[in-house]
Amino acid sequence: MKAVGINGYGTIGKRVADAVSCQDDMQIVGVTKRTPDFEARMAVDKGYPLYISAPDREELFEEVDITVTGTIDELYDKIDIMVDCTPEGIGAKNKKIYQEKGIKGIFQGGEKHDQIGKSFNSFANYLDNWGADFVRVVSCNTTGLCRTLKPINDLCGIKNARAVLVRRGADPSQVKKGPINAIIPNPPTVPSHHGPDVQTVMYDLNITTMALLVPTTLMHQHNLMLELEKPASVDDVIDLLEATPRVLLVKAGEGLGSTAEIMECARDLGRPRSDLFEIAVWKESLNIKDGELFYMQAIHQESDVVPENVDCIRSMLEMEEDPDKSIEKTNKNMEILE
Amino acid sequence: MKAVGINGYGTIGKRVADAVSCQDDMQIVGVTKRTPDFEARMAVDKGYPLYISAPDREELFEEVDITVTGTIDELYDKIDIMVDCTPEGIGAKNKKIYQEKGIKGIFQGGEKHDQIGKSFNSFANYLDNWGADFVRVVSCNTTGLCRTLKPINDLCGIKNARAVLVRRGADPSQVKKGPINAIIPNPPTVPSHHGPDVQTVMYDLNITTMALLVPTTLMHQHNLMLELEKPASVDDVIDLLEATPRVLLVKAGEGLGSTAEIMECARDLGRPRSDLFEIAVWKESLNIKDGELFYMQAIHQESDVVPENVDCIRSMLEMEEDPDKSIEKTNKNMEILE
Amino acid sequence: MKAVGINGYGTIGKRVADAVSCQDDMQIVGVTKRTPDFEARMAVDKGYPLYISAPDREELFEEVDITVTGTIDELYDKIDIMVDCTPEGIGAKNKKIYQEKGIKGIFQGGEKHDQIGKSFNSFANYLDNWGADFVRVVSCNTTGLCRTLKPINDLCGIKNARAVLVRRGADPSQVKKGPINAIIPNPPTVPSHHGPDVQTVMYDLNITTMALLVPTTLMHQHNLMLELEKPASVDDVIDLLEATPRVLLVKAGEGLGSTAEIMECARDLGRPRSDLFEIAVWKESLNIKDGELFYMQAIHQESDVVPENVDCIRSMLEMEEDPDKSIEKTNKNMEILE
Amino acid sequence: MKAVGINGYGTIGKRVADAVSCQDDMQIVGVTKRTPDFEARMAVDKGYPLYISAPDREELFEEVDITVTGTIDELYDKIDIMVDCTPEGIGAKNKKIYQEKGIKGIFQGGEKHDQIGKSFNSFANYLDNWGADFVRVVSCNTTGLCRTLKPINDLCGIKNARAVLVRRGADPSQVKKGPINAIIPNPPTVPSHHGPDVQTVMYDLNITTMALLVPTTLMHQHNLMLELEKPASVDDVIDLLEATPRVLLVKAGEGLGSTAEIMECARDLGRPRSDLFEIAVWKESLNIKDGELFYMQAIHQESDVVPENVDCIRSMLEMEEDPDKSIEKTNKNMEILE
Repeated sequence: MKAVGINGYGTIGKRVADAVSCQDDMQIVGVTKRTPDFEARMAVDKGYPLYISAPDREELFEEVDITVTGTIDELYDKIDIMVDCTPEGIGAKNKKIYQEKGIKGIFQGGEKHDQIGKSFNSFANYLDNWGADFVRVVSCNTTGLCRTLKPINDLCGIKNARAVLVRRGADPSQVKKGPINAIIPNPPTVPSHHGPDVQTVMYDLNITTMALLVPTTLMHQHNLMLELEKPASVDDVIDLLEATPRVLLVKAGEGLGSTAEIMECARDLGRPRSDLFEIAVWKESLNIKDGELFYMQAIHQESDVVPENVDCIRSMLEMEEDPDKSIEKTNKNMEILE
Repeated sequence: MKAVGINGYGTIGKRVADAVSCQDDMQIVGVTKRTPDFEARMAVDKGYPLYISAPDREELFEEVDITVTGTIDELYDKIDIMVDCTPEGIGAKNKKIYQEKGIKGIFQGGEKHDQIGKSFNSFANYLDNWGADFVRVVSCNTTGLCRTLKPINDLCGIKNARAVLVRRGADPSQVKKGPINAIIPNPPTVPSHHGPDVQTVMYDLNITTMALLVPTTLMHQHNLMLELEKPASVDDVIDLLEATPRVLLVKAGEGLGSTAEIMECARDLGRPRSDLFEIAVWKESLNIKDGELFYMQAIHQESDVVPENVDCIRSMLEMEEDPDKSIEKTNKNMEILE
Repeated sequence: MKAVGINGYGTIGKRVADAVSCQDDMQIVGVTKRTPDFEARMAVDKGYPLYISAPDREELFEEVDITVTGTIDELYDKIDIMVDCTPEGIGAKNKKIYQEKGIKGIFQGGEKHDQIGKSFNSFANYLDNWGADFVRVVSCNTTGLCRTLKPINDLCGIKNARAVLVRRGADPSQVKKGPINAIIPNPPTVPSHHGPDVQTVMYDLNITTMALLVPTTLMHQHNLMLELEKPASVDDVIDLLEATPRVLLVKAGEGLGSTAEIMECARDLGRPRSDLFEIAVWKESLNIKDGELFYMQAIHQESDVVPENVDCIRSMLEMEEDPDKSIEKTNKNMEILE
Repeated sequence: MKAVGINGYGTIGKRVADAVSCQDDMQIVGVTKRTPDFEARMAVDKGYPLYISAPDREELFEEVDITVTGTIDELYDKIDIMVDCTPEGIGAKNKKIYQEKGIKGIFQGGEKHDQIGKSFNSFANYLDNWGADFVRVVSCNTTGLCRTLKPINDLCGIKNARAVLVRRGADPSQVKKGPINAIIPNPPTVPSHHGPDVQTVMYDLNITTMALLVPTTLMHQHNLMLELEKPASVDDVIDLLEATPRVLLVKAGEGLGSTAEIMECARDLGRPRSDLFEIAVWKESLNIKDGELFYMQAIHQESDVVPENVDCIRSMLEMEEDPDKSIEKTNKNMEILE
């Protein structure tokens, strides 16, 4: 039973905590918070030992009667690995502390590949991170891209991938972030950084991406155009994706014609927090024209990387040598659809 | 064990189905759908017998391999009561059919009080609907108003209530409805119909309401100004609301300063569909000035009426004479916070 | 002086009316309305003779004291051409009436090419519509695509064009249309109809498009990926687009990094209704990689087709044989930037 | 001819510059900018002498070829008064500089009344600011409230005013600000600061306000409930408001049922930047019940204070002793509807 700590019990951190908790080979021994808000209160209610990441702020927690187990310094000794879910840019700073303390660390996609050294995707390069000390799980967008690009590349080879990423402006609870009514090229330069980010885990893929932000909170949406090396039919791709774990084919014609309706479906599925860990590919959008495969997919930015974090723990702590077995185990315990 | 049917397995219907299913004195024996969409498929997956409400559309279900148990005509014989959750205006038409078939019917707030005859709120007039044949559970907004107005009126008497209702433009999955970027007085006349609607269950309350629509999908927000008959302190009201079932005091200062963050908290609570059955009152907003009580509250329009539907079944089928006991039973089975 | 009628004084109609009015070789002799709303009132205030398109509704106009000049039947005799700006699908029906009356008609992009017979873009095929009786000005999106594709194709040849169109969900004043919080593949099939629509005016272009709707009202945004036949540099393309009428290069780095800021700039320019008749191309987005040109552009859906309607009148009424001269004249009179 | 400077050529500053420019008794001799963005470029294009407010940033302007006339220090000598339109909180700091330089200063509503000393509204207290050195024009919301409260108070006395302010989340071009999908009590305490702010210009008014933010960019919307001292009829109030300058009665029934449609109407009116300087009151919303007047109004937050700034200049520079004459002159020159 491996001991896992979560540094930053926020959007990603609280989900990874729950995902780890439902596995049988690892457990949460502590989560950290900087601010005594409702999420801190919930962590305690759920039974997670709560540690303060900024020791000088202990008083703030006392004032509102949130019981803490200790400060982060007391947590380091108790864990085999820290999953760092702090805001973008903080993780790279924390890495030095973890190094000093002699613990392994997983970082999220907001950190730069170069600053962490290695990047991870369960399907693309699980074994390349075997036993590693510091690994970054690629971002929600990159994870979403890899989930479909990897099996398609395996099946028929991708000569040239083009993708336009229409990203949600903010997460549902980030009420200070906009835009309220605008489309924002982000970045306004082409290509965007998402292509190179895919290449940190699918090393040889030829891919170019463009990205923008739009006023929605629910999901990212991706538009893919893949020139294939070997001929394939739409049915081949449908069969492939139906057999691919963590990918879901959805039909616009069955009332799932938008990101909002897909999230409604996730609510009906009864997942924790109404999350959708799978990438949803619109079945009607799949088409092949002159050897080029087109499709559209939707990515639940808050949760798609969560099962990858679990797999990443297994690879880094050398718990399961077969990627497929880790994926299957993670999925089964999280009730991810097969 | 009473037999309940759901006519219209949509936003409200699917929630009432689940709420009935977790009670120990009633069960779902059938739900109806008109269209073979993902919700129909989910109903079958969940084990609810599915009946087609428009018999001539059976073929559409067959085409997409959704197994139906029969048509709605076959359902009538099997039930003690039908909870009608069809779109606004359809319920009143269905009432005639239920009358012919000799079954009782519950309708939702989209129907007009005059067309159904009686209206219901668990706290305001549970016993007034004892044994009734046709009853309407008041709308999400009216239910939300009653949840706080009733206990406050009991405690210190409301001389004059004013409320401004800032309503969500559409439910999360209603992607065709706007507005995208506008505030819409709705109605543009004052007072709005919400005040008279409250009076269908709190008969003597002096209340005037104004209402508008804004571009959000998550919750309604209410602004209340209550001239009180008897003096009270803010602490009295806080104590009252903390002791009131299906009302939750939330603190903006703990990261719950918006409807989005309140819904995020509901997700963390692990409710089905991330629903919030309780009315959330902002603790900081409670103030009394010159004998007038002010506060702000948020209403989850998709779910706050769901427990009221369960209580309404008990009252109409004469299952539990004590309103408090029904409320407590419903809450316990639905894991509603006390 | 050619006599022009506008059938449907709405979003497009009122703009074409104003654009025609500032030309020196044509004038508005009447505009039609079906509903006596503020736009009808404004038409009268501006001095446009107002005709009722549904004669049986005359009373409605009288009730609110809007003075009408007559019914649409009285307008037909007075005009050389009717610019039909009625809602999608109505135009095709009106075509038969215009045929009977023996007047020429221009239709908008909501009508189908096959039902009108000919399509128009000032730059792509002005002369192909010379003297024609019925012509359709292609839609805002298609016009936007042609504005940049045509000069680039002329300069260096487009082997293969791919475009992803991120469309505004509704116009600013369409408050009933959503989505409020969703991304909608529209259509959910690939390719979308926009590619073939470009081919109604740029007959031989090899183009594939994907399209979606997002919750914004201001502008469409296009993401273009063009495989070129002849080598070119980014500077070549910048020089080309700077010299292209009705195309504007904007810099994200100068505070124009979103559709909202571009529309703010249009407001500062002092155009009528704060319109932006030009297509805005983000300068930073222009890039060439392995012979493929990438860029992003923004389209003001309410107004980009307006100058094309003016040019189309000149072509159909055989008023100016040189497309460039018509374009220049239209631009000068509308104060479009060169 | 009085010489006016604008410190901060942004949302408010650029509008005041244009409003001053169309008067015949004052002129703009300089505007300042801190950042060389498109607004700076436009200021130069419009012929306003441009001064850099942060002298050390001159190089940034040179780099992008924006010609400046000088630094702000050179502007002070040339002006009779500075209209400070810098971001919230900066104005109070600038006041000290203006004092040292011996020039008068107007500040905007983002500054605190206590830090400036005097507040201004054209209708409420024009003469109280006669010859003053430092005056704050109250905010867009407060100006909007005064525009209707002042004449109604004069007509029939307001015993008790209650108002709920539904505010736009961000201005159209503020793309970084949210919320995208939430309602935010702002402040979450009651009463909000808007009531006391009204009292800085309508000293004795008994008013309580509640305020919130919603995901829209166009206008604020106010819901008013006024207990009257003297009896009045709805027609009396309609007649009053129709005769009140800078107030516009609009009819939801004529297609003006939302803030978006009102702004569409403003576009059709042909105002610069499609601004609406007037407060729009929904005619249908006006109602009197038990001596209480109810109505709803919409406020164009970017522009309603602009004519007040012009009047404020006249009062502070002792240019026109009769408030009505200043208002009339400002209106006529700005083409504000009477």
